[in-house]
Amino acid sequence: MKILVIHGPNLNLLGTREPDVYGIFTLADITASLSQVAAELECEITEMQSNSEGTLVDTIQAAKGIFHGILINPAAYTHTSVAIRDALSAVALPTVEVHLSNIHKREEFRRHSYIAPVAVGQISGFGPDSYLLGLRALINYLRQ
Amino acid sequence: MKILVIHGPNLNLLGTREPDVYGIFTLADITASLSQVAAELECEITEMQSNSEGTLVDTIQAAKGIFHGILINPAAYTHTSVAIRDALSAVALPTVEVHLSNIHKREEFRRHSYIAPVAVGQISGFGPDSYLLGLRALINYLRQ
Amino acid sequence: MKILVIHGPNLNLLGTREPDVYGIFTLADITASLSQVAAELECEITEMQSNSEGTLVDTIQAAKGIFHGILINPAAYTHTSVAIRDALSAVALPTVEVHLSNIHKREEFRRHSYIAPVAVGQISGFGPDSYLLGLRALINYLRQ
Amino acid sequence: MKILVIHGPNLNLLGTREPDVYGIFTLADITASLSQVAAELECEITEMQSNSEGTLVDTIQAAKGIFHGILINPAAYTHTSVAIRDALSAVALPTVEVHLSNIHKREEFRRHSYIAPVAVGQISGFGPDSYLLGLRALINYLRQ
Amino acid sequence: MKILVIHGPNLNLLGTREPDVYGIFTLADITASLSQVAAELECEITEMQSNSEGTLVDTIQAAKGIFHGILINPAAYTHTSVAIRDALSAVALPTVEVHLSNIHKREEFRRHSYIAPVAVGQISGFGPDSYLLGLRALINYLRQ
Amino acid sequence: MKILVIHGPNLNLLGTREPDVYGIFTLADITASLSQVAAELECEITEMQSNSEGTLVDTIQAAKGIFHGILINPAAYTHTSVAIRDALSAVALPTVEVHLSNIHKREEFRRHSYIAPVAVGQISGFGPDSYLLGLRALINYLRQ
Amino acid sequence: MKILVIHGPNLNLLGTREPDVYGIFTLADITASLSQVAAELECEITEMQSNSEGTLVDTIQAAKGIFHGILINPAAYTHTSVAIRDALSAVALPTVEVHLSNIHKREEFRRHSYIAPVAVGQISGFGPDSYLLGLRALINYLRQ
Amino acid sequence: MKILVIHGPNLNLLGTREPDVYGIFTLADITASLSQVAAELECEITEMQSNSEGTLVDTIQAAKGIFHGILINPAAYTHTSVAIRDALSAVALPTVEVHLSNIHKREEFRRHSYIAPVAVGQISGFGPDSYLLGLRALINYLRQ
Amino acid sequence: MKILVIHGPNLNLLGTREPDVYGIFTLADITASLSQVAAELECEITEMQSNSEGTLVDTIQAAKGIFHGILINPAAYTHTSVAIRDALSAVALPTVEVHLSNIHKREEFRRHSYIAPVAVGQISGFGPDSYLLGLRALINYLRQ
Amino acid sequence: MKILVIHGPNLNLLGTREPDVYGIFTLADITASLSQVAAELECEITEMQSNSEGTLVDTIQAAKGIFHGILINPAAYTHTSVAIRDALSAVALPTVEVHLSNIHKREEFRRHSYIAPVAVGQISGFGPDSYLLGLRALINYLRQ
Amino acid sequence: MKILVIHGPNLNLLGTREPDVYGIFTLADITASLSQVAAELECEITEMQSNSEGTLVDTIQAAKGIFHGILINPAAYTHTSVAIRDALSAVALPTVEVHLSNIHKREEFRRHSYIAPVAVGQISGFGPDSYLLGLRALINYLRQ
Amino acid sequence: MKILVIHGPNLNLLGTREPDVYGIFTLADITASLSQVAAELECEITEMQSNSEGTLVDTIQAAKGIFHGILINPAAYTHTSVAIRDALSAVALPTVEVHLSNIHKREEFRRHSYIAPVAVGQISGFGPDSYLLGLRALINYLRQ
Repeated sequence: MKILVIHGPNLNLLGTREPDVYGIFTLADITASLSQVAAELECEITEMQSNSEGTLVDTIQAAKGIFHGILINPAAYTHTSVAIRDALSAVALPTVEVHLSNIHKREEFRRHSYIAPVAVGQISGFGPDSYLLGLRALINYLRQ
Repeated sequence: MKILVIHGPNLNLLGTREPDVYGIFTLADITASLSQVAAELECEITEMQSNSEGTLVDTIQAAKGIFHGILINPAAYTHTSVAIRDALSAVALPTVEVHLSNIHKREEFRRHSYIAPVAVGQISGFGPDSYLLGLRALINYLRQ
Repeated sequence: MKILVIHGPNLNLLGTREPDVYGIFTLADITASLSQVAAELECEITEMQSNSEGTLVDTIQAAKGIFHGILINPAAYTHTSVAIRDALSAVALPTVEVHLSNIHKREEFRRHSYIAPVAVGQISGFGPDSYLLGLRALINYLRQ
Repeated sequence: MKILVIHGPNLNLLGTREPDVYGIFTLADITASLSQVAAELECEITEMQSNSEGTLVDTIQAAKGIFHGILINPAAYTHTSVAIRDALSAVALPTVEVHLSNIHKREEFRRHSYIAPVAVGQISGFGPDSYLLGLRALINYLRQ
Repeated sequence: MKILVIHGPNLNLLGTREPDVYGIFTLADITASLSQVAAELECEITEMQSNSEGTLVDTIQAAKGIFHGILINPAAYTHTSVAIRDALSAVALPTVEVHLSNIHKREEFRRHSYIAPVAVGQISGFGPDSYLLGLRALINYLRQ
Repeated sequence: MKILVIHGPNLNLLGTREPDVYGIFTLADITASLSQVAAELECEITEMQSNSEGTLVDTIQAAKGIFHGILINPAAYTHTSVAIRDALSAVALPTVEVHLSNIHKREEFRRHSYIAPVAVGQISGFGPDSYLLGLRALINYLRQ
Repeated sequence: MKILVIHGPNLNLLGTREPDVYGIFTLADITASLSQVAAELECEITEMQSNSEGTLVDTIQAAKGIFHGILINPAAYTHTSVAIRDALSAVALPTVEVHLSNIHKREEFRRHSYIAPVAVGQISGFGPDSYLLGLRALINYLRQ
Repeated sequence: MKILVIHGPNLNLLGTREPDVYGIFTLADITASLSQVAAELECEITEMQSNSEGTLVDTIQAAKGIFHGILINPAAYTHTSVAIRDALSAVALPTVEVHLSNIHKREEFRRHSYIAPVAVGQISGFGPDSYLLGLRALINYLRQ
Repeated sequence: MKILVIHGPNLNLLGTREPDVYGIFTLADITASLSQVAAELECEITEMQSNSEGTLVDTIQAAKGIFHGILINPAAYTHTSVAIRDALSAVALPTVEVHLSNIHKREEFRRHSYIAPVAVGQISGFGPDSYLLGLRALINYLRQ
Repeated sequence: MKILVIHGPNLNLLGTREPDVYGIFTLADITASLSQVAAELECEITEMQSNSEGTLVDTIQAAKGIFHGILINPAAYTHTSVAIRDALSAVALPTVEVHLSNIHKREEFRRHSYIAPVAVGQISGFGPDSYLLGLRALINYLRQ
Repeated sequence: MKILVIHGPNLNLLGTREPDVYGIFTLADITASLSQVAAELECEITEMQSNSEGTLVDTIQAAKGIFHGILINPAAYTHTSVAIRDALSAVALPTVEVHLSNIHKREEFRRHSYIAPVAVGQISGFGPDSYLLGLRALINYLRQ
Repeated sequence: MKILVIHGPNLNLLGTREPDVYGIFTLADITASLSQVAAELECEITEMQSNSEGTLVDTIQAAKGIFHGILINPAAYTHTSVAIRDALSAVALPTVEVHLSNIHKREEFRRHSYIAPVAVGQISGFGPDSYLLGLRALINYLRQ
């Protein structure tokens, strides 16, 4: 079971970026935690991060035939990218959308997700734990 | 660590209610799965279900001082109940909101949650697994 | 052929409640007329009235397996209750929605019905006759 | 008691037009059923159909002094014709609006009716039975 | 002069509920203050609190013929309950709507009241004093 | 100076149609008054009335090369007809739009005119006098 | 018959102000033309202009008991002044609203008038002729 | 304890202005009643009325350092004046907003207040009693 | 292969109607060009033009069983006619919608088409070439 | 080069007014800084402040022929005054709009400016420096 | 005559991407067909595809001086990219916008195009034929 | 004092791009002017331009620890990029947003900025001078 983990724009700054909103952990911390859970769940994860919508689309397209599912935190592109949505629809891999902060209690424009309607589900608000829960959710979904 | 699990209106019908949307498992199946995870996480759960907004408010109020957190699937009241939102604010217990279906890809009116802005986070779309992930999320949150 | 007739909030006040809007007949008058039509149509009706959304949901749930169809005047809950809508979807009994007044010429907020999209049809504006027409509509629907 | 029955645009195609939405009965079938009910109710009906908004306005105007009430299925003009609404207001004959399909569960633009606020009431969703119920509703209204 | 004082959902938690929004006084404190003012104004008050929309509707209905006016803090139901509005219209007792916090400076959804259009007037923002002012307003209204 | 006077739908009913809104004068009364003013202003008027949008479009098209200007009361089509607007743009004859009632204090949907942006100006609210003022306005406009 | 003619803000600049929108005539030219028509109609007019909303309100209030009607071009305050609307409602003098330009084909915000719903009618788009037509309309209205 | 009482535009006409909406009492009547209540509450009041937004802003500015609180009926400027709102914010004196009529059941545009978010609270709908209640509310607020 | 070509309202004026928007070619010019392309594509075309919505609906209805497809420029009715949309749905003939001007860069109300959702596709902005492209598109569609 | 500097409502309170939003400098401080920059830029400035919309309109009108440009902070009237916009259009002097605070991150209603579309440009958010930058911008604009 | 053909995001997946929406042909198939039509029309085409908005902007900019026109399927960026619109405006090359699916019958957000207002025209809904029609349209436009 | 100057998409085309909107100066001209002002202000500037949202995000992220402030013209991304906004929030460097044209008088979609709420301020409408003013504003801000 191979899972592609995608981190959207500005997530490379975790730990230094608005820590009151996003917390003090880094992307490396998330990677470490994800690896542990992946081991527990007996799956293999590959991570990538990009600030570019086009690169994210390229990556999603390339996932087809290699990965069984996608775990994505689309960050800012959640609210503006039809291209990423279309890429996810196109490859038709089961996808779980995660967010560190609870997007439903932030600015109005952050409450709408272009991605959610093409995802299996959405997990929002649990800090790095959103990723771990998302990985569990995705693996469970794939095993059923 | 004691957790109150609240099931909102019509969830008592699970298994018979629109199985293409909500699946074929019953509330008892969810209870069984939740108990297993609760054991694994070493917490104690108490469940209740009601179709009445007032009873749900009463239950949430009574949780104060007894429970450490609330796991709630507010179902239809997600979209219409300011009273449940206010009750959750009032007791100020960490709350995780879960949904069986992915509410972000259903009718427009199901995409707005009165509950989300007063919850730690929201998990939506993973069937009964939403509850299990929600319980993990809540326990992790409480332990940090 | 057994039909459940549900009267929503404040309909117990009929005859005294804003007679210029709702008329001078009482709920008992409606019951009497409905009984006559039921006899003519050779069906059996059971009536209930409640001011509580939760009780209405409970009643609808309990109708499954006992009744063949539901005739409902959801009154004020027409415009605010997703829970009653979900209950009707869940039991999947053919439902006819009726209103005494013509809701389409009243305040803006009364023109939207959460119930109509899950009902067979809607009859609005004919005073107590809305119920009698609704019963005929429901029986015809069930017999086809 | 003389009633004018008006069929709006495209209703002449009934039976061939989108049978999954409108059913397989024809306008002649409706006429036949209406005649039976008219006989039962001891009233006289005159039917007309037109695809032209102007002709429908002309017909409504001419009804004054000849008919006691109007039973109308305005079809597509329900949602776009202020002229038909104004004609109905102008002749001030009791009018019942009927629809074959449940307009409240179709496209957003079909949920608004320019006609309903000047009608006694609206009946929607019961196929040809909508006409029969509408005739009963109108006769009852006129006899009270 | 007999007045029914109705406290809506979550008001039983006063003193513990979000004290920065609602203050540190309890419902008992309000009762005590109201009693003093009632004595000064030579009227008799009866208080009730409920978290249930249906119970509030029942109570309002039962007020007819017993009370001369209603002083109501509909709390969360202010913004969502057409049923309470209809109950108040139905009993047609002079009603004064009060709010502890200034609802006009809170979340957008709290700025709309279904109750205000059927009330004599609205008093909002003065903490427990809103009740005392409301009682005065109601008594003055009834005496004129 | 030849002027075409166009009366839109339902204006043939003037005198009998909702006299509290439109007054008790008839279209013949308006014709008589218009003739007097036309004589005073030394212009020639031709009148037509139709309930059909298509006929109104035909008439406007035919006016080109024969008339110097158009005085139109588009009535209900004011609010719904892009076709009449386009016809007026196409013939490019100076046009004055008149209304018997003050459309700016009626239903919301009557406050918008598709015609006004292609007219010289609009006169609304003066009963039959709107026509007389409109004719003066048009003749003045043409003479400048 | 005494008429108060009120010119709103910036109308003192006529002749120099955006001549492509408002024309090259001055307020004095309008006064001269109005005097002629007033003589023809055997009424007496008094004119005032102000750029201040407050002064316009004062002037309208003072008109009561002295004038029989008001001819007003509220200019920019058409779209923003509830105070002028309330003043006109308060003195309850028949009022005609005029505009030099056709406000219905300008910026969106100029298409809404707070004044129109409290006026007899509105005349818009005929340059200085709007005033002359407005005076005729007002005198006719007062004489009927 | 010195209180500034501000009456907004058109309130000088009370008693003659739309008595069905605003009542038959005059501003002098309100002054008399306010004086009585001020005596009872042992505070000193100064009243002013103006139809000019600018003058109202000037007055509010000048209140700083002289008065302890402001009781204001902003009338029409409630709905249109950011300047008065800003003046109240700038002087930062506790302010109570009052309205004679229940603005929440009038035209849509009267339901929004620019003033309420910078006031302690709002009292609306009790006729002259709104002022008396407002004075009590303000004094209580200042004494706590 | 027989194709019905329908020209909506005001298209008979082509060549004289707002040439800066619609060009200087006439309907006859379009007919000539269409004939050439029809010959090239080996199909037979029949053209009609009407300013009447009802006549257009009649024509579309009559096309069933005679034509294999419809090429329509609904002109002004694009934006206002549900009746034409319903007629096209009812006959269920493959339909291509064309526009001379680019409707997506004109007034806001011209950007919405009631017809497009029931057409195969839409071609907009190429002058008379829109028809020729539309015919090709339709024939290709029918041949696949 | 003569420049008129206009300060809108409440700006006379600078230094005391909400210092967290507007800072602790006074209007005199701004005048001093502006004088320095004016000297540097070799232009002459005249300043005025008013809380009255009418006075601001008067002042703008009077600027014609005397000043070469206007530097304006319309403050609260930015969002509500069509009259000031029209005055600026009428005198057609190059105008620069400045704001002390960044209006684009404040309340929704402060993000819209009636003035900006008739100004050369807008500078917002730099405290007193907004004026200095605005003067530079205006002088540069006038010299090009 | 040299034409640049631009394929937006995810179009490289054609043939595998949601075949029920986009069909089973590949981008290579489109290239082949386009080449044939280009040969027939005696023009030269250059194709490029990118998933990156920035690369698409770069490509459009570079087209200036090399190509005579642009044929673009902006895909997902149709609805979100002001940058591509601005690039097309900047190079001012005649542009034709094409879509495989009929965007006017898909999700609401796909019905709006940022590109259409800067294009010559739009062709939508004909599968790969949209490209061939678009190329014809563009060449015709350039030759006129 | 080191400042990063960022030019968004299509700004590399300045001088050739829509000169009536953006002027005839080039990016090199702006660089030259900025260098002069930077020398005067004794600061060091580094410029970059990109058409890619991702590259702009990368650049902003890399600015942290190297630059003291950012001067940005986000061009088209002003209106669509949450990612750039989030990058600016994340690095938390003082940022000034500039626009060559006055975005507040252009198309509706250009009036909203995702960037402004995270910037110190915004300068819009002064052509290349917007940059020079922006640099002064930023340096002043940093020195205070």
